[in-house]
Amino acid sequence: MSVTSAKGFRAAGIAAGIKASGNPDLALVVNDGPHHAAAGVFTSNRVKAAPVQWSEQVLKAGTVTAVVLNSGGANACTGPAGFQDTHKTAEEAAALLGTSAAEVAVCSTGLIGVRLPMDALLSGLKTAAGALAADGGPAAATAIMTTDTVAKTAEAHGTGYVVGGMAKGAGMLAPGLATMLVVVTTDAVVESDTLDAVLRNAAEVTFDRVDSDGCMSTNDTVLLLASGASEITPDPAEFQNAVTEVCADLARQLVGDAEGATKDIAVEVVHAATEQDAVQVAKAVTRSNLFKCAMYGNDPNWGRVLSAVGTTEAAFDPDHVSVAINGVWVCRDGGVGDDRDLVDLTGRDVQVTIDLAAGGESATVWTNDLTPGYVHENSAYSS
Amino acid sequence: MSVTSAKGFRAAGIAAGIKASGNPDLALVVNDGPHHAAAGVFTSNRVKAAPVQWSEQVLKAGTVTAVVLNSGGANACTGPAGFQDTHKTAEEAAALLGTSAAEVAVCSTGLIGVRLPMDALLSGLKTAAGALAADGGPAAATAIMTTDTVAKTAEAHGTGYVVGGMAKGAGMLAPGLATMLVVVTTDAVVESDTLDAVLRNAAEVTFDRVDSDGCMSTNDTVLLLASGASEITPDPAEFQNAVTEVCADLARQLVGDAEGATKDIAVEVVHAATEQDAVQVAKAVTRSNLFKCAMYGNDPNWGRVLSAVGTTEAAFDPDHVSVAINGVWVCRDGGVGDDRDLVDLTGRDVQVTIDLAAGGESATVWTNDLTPGYVHENSAYSS
Repeated sequence: MSVTSAKGFRAAGIAAGIKASGNPDLALVVNDGPHHAAAGVFTSNRVKAAPVQWSEQVLKAGTVTAVVLNSGGANACTGPAGFQDTHKTAEEAAALLGTSAAEVAVCSTGLIGVRLPMDALLSGLKTAAGALAADGGPAAATAIMTTDTVAKTAEAHGTGYVVGGMAKGAGMLAPGLATMLVVVTTDAVVESDTLDAVLRNAAEVTFDRVDSDGCMSTNDTVLLLASGASEITPDPAEFQNAVTEVCADLARQLVGDAEGATKDIAVEVVHAATEQDAVQVAKAVTRSNLFKCAMYGNDPNWGRVLSAVGTTEAAFDPDHVSVAINGVWVCRDGGVGDDRDLVDLTGRDVQVTIDLAAGGESATVWTNDLTPGYVHENSAYSS
Repeated sequence: MSVTSAKGFRAAGIAAGIKASGNPDLALVVNDGPHHAAAGVFTSNRVKAAPVQWSEQVLKAGTVTAVVLNSGGANACTGPAGFQDTHKTAEEAAALLGTSAAEVAVCSTGLIGVRLPMDALLSGLKTAAGALAADGGPAAATAIMTTDTVAKTAEAHGTGYVVGGMAKGAGMLAPGLATMLVVVTTDAVVESDTLDAVLRNAAEVTFDRVDSDGCMSTNDTVLLLASGASEITPDPAEFQNAVTEVCADLARQLVGDAEGATKDIAVEVVHAATEQDAVQVAKAVTRSNLFKCAMYGNDPNWGRVLSAVGTTEAAFDPDHVSVAINGVWVCRDGGVGDDRDLVDLTGRDVQVTIDLAAGGESATVWTNDLTPGYVHENSAYSS
């Protein structure tokens, strides 16, 4: 299960020497067709890395033959020279693969503000092109890891076609997309306009509902490529479900592997007046450092949930908000509820339910706890 | 220098047995007049503690004779019974002091969702009333501490009058006011309407520009009381400056004593199109966990500054933003600037300057680093 699960795709992941550690750092994903439809969604950060600026242009035409992804450097805040590096990468990949640079998307992840070692990258690109294989997906997923501790892949099956994908991301992980690179592939026959709509729908309820540390990246990219190799034109609803399933699977894997995390936390808001209200309230809680520290300490401190809820503009009456932690309604109608000592927080999974008593809509946002491990990892990232 | 620096005020701070530790936990501040003008600003959190709901009503009349402040419990999310506890506290203080409960403000700080031990509190109130003294300010400042490590007081002198104050606050410290209780007193002759305007002006550029951990409290209260005992009607500009100076001093002390902090960080935004833009950009940076972890690690990781700036809607061109850390312009025009190894982050004070190159306005927001100490302290707060 990976980007090579669907027919028509080959991939490779190799060590090009971009990372000082010598670990794999360069991935190549190639769509051998017969179709090359593609869609992409990108970070909403106004400070966009060079590969994001490049790939946004490529995706406008809706055709992608290959994706080059590197870890070991974000190529963000690197000015015109950094953009030229991305352009050169696309041109070199196009020459190696016999396609046009205008059909090559580029993704980078790593430290901001440092130029990529282009000699190593371009030399590695040749190696990667030579290593392309129909079972190369797992190697590609490994090569895009930064602080990730495990490679992240997923797969879903439609009627006669497959949707597969890979992702990386462990820090700077927040709504508006995160420090994450995601490539999802399918062998279904789908036009790029449809892919675009399907990908946006899927991202809105998956990647956009993950908030690990509230920090929005300069490099987030999610690509969906369709080879048409199955010769199956999918049922629209089934295809949407399959793509959403793969995106949701990858999104949960991103949060589960978040830097320093010891808890996987789902914050569900129910009985909201609107879905937007539910998302706003859930994100206020998932962004609360105090709430996240309490979760790390196995402390069912629901006051920190209420104080976060109170910062939002969602419709609710503070005297009618209730909160359950792992099934125990510790707060009822804005006040003290069931005995907090009944809450068992010893496991890794935590479910927080917030009942706004204001309507019939709901939403869930996933996050993790804030731990000394997160602080340690991020206080020594570039130095 | 404290709430009893100005003439016409007495205060006390005692151990009432609200805190399990036995530390001081009850403070009383009394305005002996001849005037009793007062103004207050309160948390903008929609989940408001009982004492905030009570004191907001008291302040509407612009007259305050006494303030009761307790640590050891926030009396937030405690429902109608919690509100009755606050009411009873004001009535008891009024009876002891021969005034009306409608002129007694109440402030509480501590854990949310727990009723106060009213027997201990009311009994302690009698002790505190008997301990009132013209030099009782420091004792009062000590009694309102929670996770604060030092008592916080300040003082400024006008022409013939004094402005003094005390504050507490160490966590849940963010714009819209923080988990902080502040009482500022003056012996100047000032009407309550003027006090209100002066206090709002001062809070906007001091307490509202402090963001320790992005978490907004349910209990924030800042009170300004004027006794008129100096018989001096102050020059408006001088009085504004004196109140702002005391608020700024207290605000800086709050950030300096923030939970687990090892750095005092000033984020200054210059050449912004508007002051609002400058504040928005500065707050985006002071709320970035990744930036704050980098500061803890003495890592001049300016990419985390840029990625936070990029999440705002302020006017700027990403290719013309520059960033200095402790005087070294590590980012120029959105790209790599001077050598980051020139940045010395070994001291406690850090100055980050962000030049938006978009206008002539500026603002500074103060914060601190994110440390394992913060996580430890807040993962074991209520348990």
